[in-house]
Amino acid sequence: MQQHRIEADYLLETPDDPERVAATIAGEQSSGTFVRVPGETPELLERAAARVEKLEVIERFTGARALPTSTPTPAGESLVRARLTLSWPLATLGPSLPNLMATVAGNLFELRQVSGLRLLDIRLPQPFAAAYPGPKFGAEGTRRLTGVKGRPLIGTIIKPSVGFSAEDTAALVAQLCAAGIDFIKDDELQADGPNCPFNERVAAVMREVNASADRTGKKPMYAFNLTGDVEEMKRRHDVLLAHGATCLMASINSVGLAGMIELAKFSQLPIHAHRNGWGYLSRHPLLGWSFTAWSKIWRLAGADHMHVNGLANKFSEPDDSVIASARACLEPLFADKPCTVMPVFSSGQGVTQVPGTYAAVNTTDLIVTAGGGILAHPQGPGAGVSALREAWDAALQGVPQADYARTHPALQSAMEAAA
Amino acid sequence: MQQHRIEADYLLETPDDPERVAATIAGEQSSGTFVRVPGETPELLERAAARVEKLEVIERFTGARALPTSTPTPAGESLVRARLTLSWPLATLGPSLPNLMATVAGNLFELRQVSGLRLLDIRLPQPFAAAYPGPKFGAEGTRRLTGVKGRPLIGTIIKPSVGFSAEDTAALVAQLCAAGIDFIKDDELQADGPNCPFNERVAAVMREVNASADRTGKKPMYAFNLTGDVEEMKRRHDVLLAHGATCLMASINSVGLAGMIELAKFSQLPIHAHRNGWGYLSRHPLLGWSFTAWSKIWRLAGADHMHVNGLANKFSEPDDSVIASARACLEPLFADKPCTVMPVFSSGQGVTQVPGTYAAVNTTDLIVTAGGGILAHPQGPGAGVSALREAWDAALQGVPQADYARTHPALQSAMEAAA
Repeated sequence: MQQHRIEADYLLETPDDPERVAATIAGEQSSGTFVRVPGETPELLERAAARVEKLEVIERFTGARALPTSTPTPAGESLVRARLTLSWPLATLGPSLPNLMATVAGNLFELRQVSGLRLLDIRLPQPFAAAYPGPKFGAEGTRRLTGVKGRPLIGTIIKPSVGFSAEDTAALVAQLCAAGIDFIKDDELQADGPNCPFNERVAAVMREVNASADRTGKKPMYAFNLTGDVEEMKRRHDVLLAHGATCLMASINSVGLAGMIELAKFSQLPIHAHRNGWGYLSRHPLLGWSFTAWSKIWRLAGADHMHVNGLANKFSEPDDSVIASARACLEPLFADKPCTVMPVFSSGQGVTQVPGTYAAVNTTDLIVTAGGGILAHPQGPGAGVSALREAWDAALQGVPQADYARTHPALQSAMEAAA
Repeated sequence: MQQHRIEADYLLETPDDPERVAATIAGEQSSGTFVRVPGETPELLERAAARVEKLEVIERFTGARALPTSTPTPAGESLVRARLTLSWPLATLGPSLPNLMATVAGNLFELRQVSGLRLLDIRLPQPFAAAYPGPKFGAEGTRRLTGVKGRPLIGTIIKPSVGFSAEDTAALVAQLCAAGIDFIKDDELQADGPNCPFNERVAAVMREVNASADRTGKKPMYAFNLTGDVEEMKRRHDVLLAHGATCLMASINSVGLAGMIELAKFSQLPIHAHRNGWGYLSRHPLLGWSFTAWSKIWRLAGADHMHVNGLANKFSEPDDSVIASARACLEPLFADKPCTVMPVFSSGQGVTQVPGTYAAVNTTDLIVTAGGGILAHPQGPGAGVSALREAWDAALQGVPQADYARTHPALQSAMEAAA
């Protein structure tokens, strides 16, 4: 293990000398502190210190700092932006994801020499592959459970997000099953409150899903939000198994890493990883986490599906960022353990985004969810599902959507409603 | 439970009409979506919708957005900053901390209508108090275990942060025990790597701590960093108990909420909550979390000590923010369940910050840690501990530090070294 190193790439902005700042970050995040202390010998540094592997200045400019500092700064000072790669000996922390997080994303973003710092990517040495399960299902397992082949899973979110009782939810699910939906999920706000208790919802929803599967041979995957304390999640997981459910959902920023690792250990179902809260981790371009770096941690921990937002979404994220996230999900993490997960497109999605999404990712190993885009279709949810599936059929056949719509009235209506 | 509501305060910046944006946030975070869907009846809204309780415009100005958006924006557009209070019916989610997080800090920071959003505070209804343990030890339990009364705990951090073997660490601990230290902690980068395995470190360190306690009757509290997966933390906790250790430390952003809740359930030791990574959650003043809001969640989950940085720290956080955080730790969460925790001052701390710290918080229920400030004292760690304790004696007696130092050479040396 001695020779293995962890690497992390950062986007750095500083008013200071970037080489000195890089050395400070490396010191702070390994053996150093703000003064020289006894015991920090050359041998210890060799054994434990983080190394600056690469520092490339991207631009030098005059302007305002991306992030404020506590001391007043000159209005038009000289700033540097650089791409920095650090490495750490694995022997200091071992192949532990929580401790990896404290190392690559610990006390460094608030350093006073830093006026911007964003973690862009991480590269993990082989022992990490052996230490964690990675996705147990991924695209292959999800396709096996749903029977959907050769196209994305067409999914939806129960809307209104909250407020429905268990029976209200089941009634909508019955409609969606009849419409031929592949995938349905709880909203992340729907958990286990008195208004719609988890166990009641599971029983009512699975009654409809199972009945539909018995009738048609097709069993839509319903991702039940079991977000909660560890013991609650274990109990809820077992309730899902008992009712024949085929997917669970968890809000990963709420559950956190140790909880997700534990969940992945006992889960016998695909884990639909919801990223709500992602905005506070990523919204500022010079602070926090890139999706590429962040998602690697959750993929290795055991997520099977990861949310990536969607093209032309209702949030502030630009399309190129959405596409980069989706591609990151599909890129192997280790040669012998790829840990690829299904990207989940959502947020204001409808037929409009289909051609662009397919052109950008060039795969069908996706889950495409539309809440309002399906449920608010002028002819109802059934037509909403048909329209979205038809939009994908057109994209996969390379037929312009408008042409395809001429012979597919559900698609036609959806296009008109979206125009 | 029907009548209970959760409240959250935000600092909002928007180029849009703030009332409309407030309504959008409330809708997104409860029953709404971007289009009207069937089933969103007045009765459902009454039952489940978030409410805008208060919206106070702080300023209207012309300038650049705090956070970028995906669409190009006019250079000097008109912006509004406002303080917004939302409320949610508890009946939707129940008294669940992970689901609370998804509700008050979920998919809202990235809304395109929002050019800045920061969660300032949360107020939890009474059922939350019954649902979680809160700190089992707090200041009282920590004082009972350490025997320190009437002054802050004087602590230090093992430095170099990483690189020491278990025996190197124990040798330093022996020195610190001899010097009369109250509290020692692992650095958050020191976990359970092959260079310094947790079990070996615990055995070696506690051998010294116990021997010193047997000799002197004073047992310093050592906070061992057990950050890891849930099962690892359980095993490590039991190792701590077996060796007579009196504190555990966890990196709360790495462990996450469900993991910390689980840890607090089985822990028989005070939980020293390390906030590394706090920078990515808080560094931008118009994004993410205030310490007040964030710390309430961890306090209720069971933290006993929480890091708050320190005055004149080596990071970018201004002193008023540090003081606000320390005061937040000491403010009751519920009338009958205060959940107050000991604030931990750290980061470049030494004798210099003592008078200002005491003047600002006016309590001794604190842990004050100095790494380099103790270990790099010109006369060694023993004098480092004496100097810091003398600085507090002076502050508590209302004697100017320079006067007190005339008859206290360790303090005198520390002041000279810091000058």
